[in-house]
Amino acid sequence: MDTPLSWRERLYVVVFQTDTVAGRRFDSLLLLIILASLITVVLDSIDEVHQNYAGLLAGIEWGFTAIFLAEYVVRLYCSPKPLRYAFSFYGLVDLLAIVPGIIALYYSDAQYLLIIRVIRMLRIFRVLKLSPYLKQAHYLLAALRGSKQKIIVFLVSVSTLVTVFGTLMYVVEGPEHGFTSIPKGIYWAIVTLTTVGFGDIVPKTPLGQVISSMVMITGYSIIAVPTGIFTAELANAMRGEQLQHDCPVCRKNNHEHGAAFCSRCGNALFKKME
Amino acid sequence: MDTPLSWRERLYVVVFQTDTVAGRRFDSLLLLIILASLITVVLDSIDEVHQNYAGLLAGIEWGFTAIFLAEYVVRLYCSPKPLRYAFSFYGLVDLLAIVPGIIALYYSDAQYLLIIRVIRMLRIFRVLKLSPYLKQAHYLLAALRGSKQKIIVFLVSVSTLVTVFGTLMYVVEGPEHGFTSIPKGIYWAIVTLTTVGFGDIVPKTPLGQVISSMVMITGYSIIAVPTGIFTAELANAMRGEQLQHDCPVCRKNNHEHGAAFCSRCGNALFKKME
Amino acid sequence: MDTPLSWRERLYVVVFQTDTVAGRRFDSLLLLIILASLITVVLDSIDEVHQNYAGLLAGIEWGFTAIFLAEYVVRLYCSPKPLRYAFSFYGLVDLLAIVPGIIALYYSDAQYLLIIRVIRMLRIFRVLKLSPYLKQAHYLLAALRGSKQKIIVFLVSVSTLVTVFGTLMYVVEGPEHGFTSIPKGIYWAIVTLTTVGFGDIVPKTPLGQVISSMVMITGYSIIAVPTGIFTAELANAMRGEQLQHDCPVCRKNNHEHGAAFCSRCGNALFKKME
Amino acid sequence: MDTPLSWRERLYVVVFQTDTVAGRRFDSLLLLIILASLITVVLDSIDEVHQNYAGLLAGIEWGFTAIFLAEYVVRLYCSPKPLRYAFSFYGLVDLLAIVPGIIALYYSDAQYLLIIRVIRMLRIFRVLKLSPYLKQAHYLLAALRGSKQKIIVFLVSVSTLVTVFGTLMYVVEGPEHGFTSIPKGIYWAIVTLTTVGFGDIVPKTPLGQVISSMVMITGYSIIAVPTGIFTAELANAMRGEQLQHDCPVCRKNNHEHGAAFCSRCGNALFKKME
Repeated sequence: MDTPLSWRERLYVVVFQTDTVAGRRFDSLLLLIILASLITVVLDSIDEVHQNYAGLLAGIEWGFTAIFLAEYVVRLYCSPKPLRYAFSFYGLVDLLAIVPGIIALYYSDAQYLLIIRVIRMLRIFRVLKLSPYLKQAHYLLAALRGSKQKIIVFLVSVSTLVTVFGTLMYVVEGPEHGFTSIPKGIYWAIVTLTTVGFGDIVPKTPLGQVISSMVMITGYSIIAVPTGIFTAELANAMRGEQLQHDCPVCRKNNHEHGAAFCSRCGNALFKKME
Repeated sequence: MDTPLSWRERLYVVVFQTDTVAGRRFDSLLLLIILASLITVVLDSIDEVHQNYAGLLAGIEWGFTAIFLAEYVVRLYCSPKPLRYAFSFYGLVDLLAIVPGIIALYYSDAQYLLIIRVIRMLRIFRVLKLSPYLKQAHYLLAALRGSKQKIIVFLVSVSTLVTVFGTLMYVVEGPEHGFTSIPKGIYWAIVTLTTVGFGDIVPKTPLGQVISSMVMITGYSIIAVPTGIFTAELANAMRGEQLQHDCPVCRKNNHEHGAAFCSRCGNALFKKME
Repeated sequence: MDTPLSWRERLYVVVFQTDTVAGRRFDSLLLLIILASLITVVLDSIDEVHQNYAGLLAGIEWGFTAIFLAEYVVRLYCSPKPLRYAFSFYGLVDLLAIVPGIIALYYSDAQYLLIIRVIRMLRIFRVLKLSPYLKQAHYLLAALRGSKQKIIVFLVSVSTLVTVFGTLMYVVEGPEHGFTSIPKGIYWAIVTLTTVGFGDIVPKTPLGQVISSMVMITGYSIIAVPTGIFTAELANAMRGEQLQHDCPVCRKNNHEHGAAFCSRCGNALFKKME
Repeated sequence: MDTPLSWRERLYVVVFQTDTVAGRRFDSLLLLIILASLITVVLDSIDEVHQNYAGLLAGIEWGFTAIFLAEYVVRLYCSPKPLRYAFSFYGLVDLLAIVPGIIALYYSDAQYLLIIRVIRMLRIFRVLKLSPYLKQAHYLLAALRGSKQKIIVFLVSVSTLVTVFGTLMYVVEGPEHGFTSIPKGIYWAIVTLTTVGFGDIVPKTPLGQVISSMVMITGYSIIAVPTGIFTAELANAMRGEQLQHDCPVCRKNNHEHGAAFCSRCGNALFKKME
């Protein structure tokens, strides 16, 4: 009774890990299949393609859903802790990649939910040499986490600004110039403040253009704020700043980068050889 | 005669502070009411909603105005220094949140001024755990204050640029391409320099397009200036938790927060009195 | 014969300097007049205003030109070195502020050249407390100068990119979609790369949209380059980084910020008091 | 038999190097010719010019192609290692600058490929004083290389985001508002996320405008990420002129360029062999 277990273990190594050649090949193949299934969904949304190949594409999508279903069952089977996998981030995403394909049999619009498979593409970092990317992602996340509160302050200020300016423009320009309601005004303010500037709604009155100019210059200037926050935090995260060294006298263990003497007890941190 | 005073004090703690459970609940409830009143104003501005529920919404707005009026009176009543509250930033905002509701009875457009209540939403920082946000806001403000003069230099240069380019485009393109006056030209220059680019006014002549290209590349490049200013200042402000004190021997002027000895020369930073 | 000279000197102090009360008042008044003359030019460009008040505005403009002419003569008269003033930056700008007003008598479009007076507004920094602004402007200029070569490398790369993409789009999209010539394509590429996006010319073919996406993502990413250059240089300019101190043994006079020992001879830079 | 060799050598110095006056003059002349040939291609693409001067411009283009062909042959002839030149970056670009001119004889649209000559303009850095620009370009490249992995993480995240948002908008807005397929939706998401905002496709439904607002605010905020990455890396690259060497005593790992002793502990960085 040792063989089936060992089978499961071998499967586990191939399906869940990327250290072995077989494991890496499996993940590469899986990525290709995911990509192909995404392309199928995208192609099916183009009108000319849909009219000519609707049946064919539906069949292919079915095939991919079947493959992913099989993969999901295998993962559940060979995982040592199936429940833990099923409720992990990847487990849920893997499930979500199958469900819409089955729903689509009854309600055809559900197929667009298949695009959720794009999240499975994040596995790509497992196929590329993993660790350096993880370290970089870690820096980025550390910088984002460190700036979380500053970013909330920033977003709350921007929301306030956008609400006030949007209402102002609604009052000044009015429905005859496209500002048909306050939400529309707020939408316009976001379009303008972020410097996107679609041009679907534009100010027509001189006063409206003066207010717009203020919104634009504000938006142009305060983009400096998230950039500044993030850059400062990232530089911090990357520098790792302090000197880790026990003071031989008072045991203070972190010091300024260039410290020669302990700032607590004043003794030399390093013996000078003579 | 001690009870009414204690009543006022208890009210004060609930209404003005957030340390107690009751105080926090009061502020949370207030935020919800403000939000609801904002949503009412916004909904009322949508045409379909207004036509069907004008009366209902007007009534609800009235209710909110009454609540805020009551709150304002309570604040005045329980505040130990009512006048100081009345003329403080929050006091004025609280008043401004009521007045338009009353004016709206006679002049219905005034209701849009109610949007000023959005400023009251800034109280949200009091309900969230206050101090870390204040500290971050303090960093941001310190960075802004430190870069004030640089920003004025920058804004004056941008204004000059925009005026010159706007006039140039007015002369080059002329009224037949939408540049009907110099102010319009300046408006266009702001739209372009800030990279918003609505597209409501666009250059048609080759010379106009060459000038536009210059404006765009200028705008694309000088966005680096406010960003650079702000980032450098913010990095400064964040580093600036350091001790600013000249070492009496080597003149090193910034030290670790709790430093007793200079980390460069090892001498005591402060003379010990004996 | 001492009085006329002293008169000129007194005039000189008032007209050219801002240290005295009279000098500051003179400059403030001048700024107001310049601003008024600018507003006149701007107002005259608005069609409705021009049709009703053409004569009046022309008269006012004449008045301003006369005032500036008088001022220019006075400056020439009281300047100790009139030629040097006449050929200085401010001297030339002052002259340029007069000439178009005189030309406009014969050729009325020349009046728009009067907008050049906006450059005279830069005197505003002399009226505001001068020196801190100069110092900040100095930092900004130092940062720009330090990054000159990097910026040239950047601009040459951008020009190459824009030419290649513009031509590509001309070939791919062709005249029927608004890309009527290569210069037009380059104009479009600039509009897109700088993220302005007027929308007057947009790609219609799938291939054109793919190329556009590449241009946009490139433009969105490389905005980091001028920003990074400028920020890094500005941070450098503001830090003023090194320790200025003579090594007591070898006289090396600048060291790393936190240096305790000379990196050339290894001797302690500062005596430790005991 | 020494003269022909010396002839080739002299040619080599003129054609390939920029140290001599002749060499610099040759490169300057070449740049002018390249520029002229680019202008010819660009002019030929303008309809009015093409209709009147098609023959003349074709002749001129022919002339330039002949000149570049001659130059290519000379380079092959005088190069000490012709094959190595032929397969170098510059050699291939030089060849590519000729081929389309010859193809254009049979297939006239190929002339636009001539725009590839713009890449030859990069030689301009050889004519300007070379080394400082190379050093700056080196910094920029070092910063880009150092941030390669962070940028890949960033681009993969952006691609995922854009795919999800594009599909979402296709489902929400549908073909009747211009979102005719998922690729179109992705194109729109890129236009919006990069804050270009052409305005050729805009959301019309309230839900679509809410999603758009999220895309725009995301795009406006995450522009901080490439900027922060690049700035931090560039600052690193610029600081990195330092000596990377572990101090044998205190392990300080970066020092002034010419350091002999550690500035932190005063010990010799390198053991003196005796």
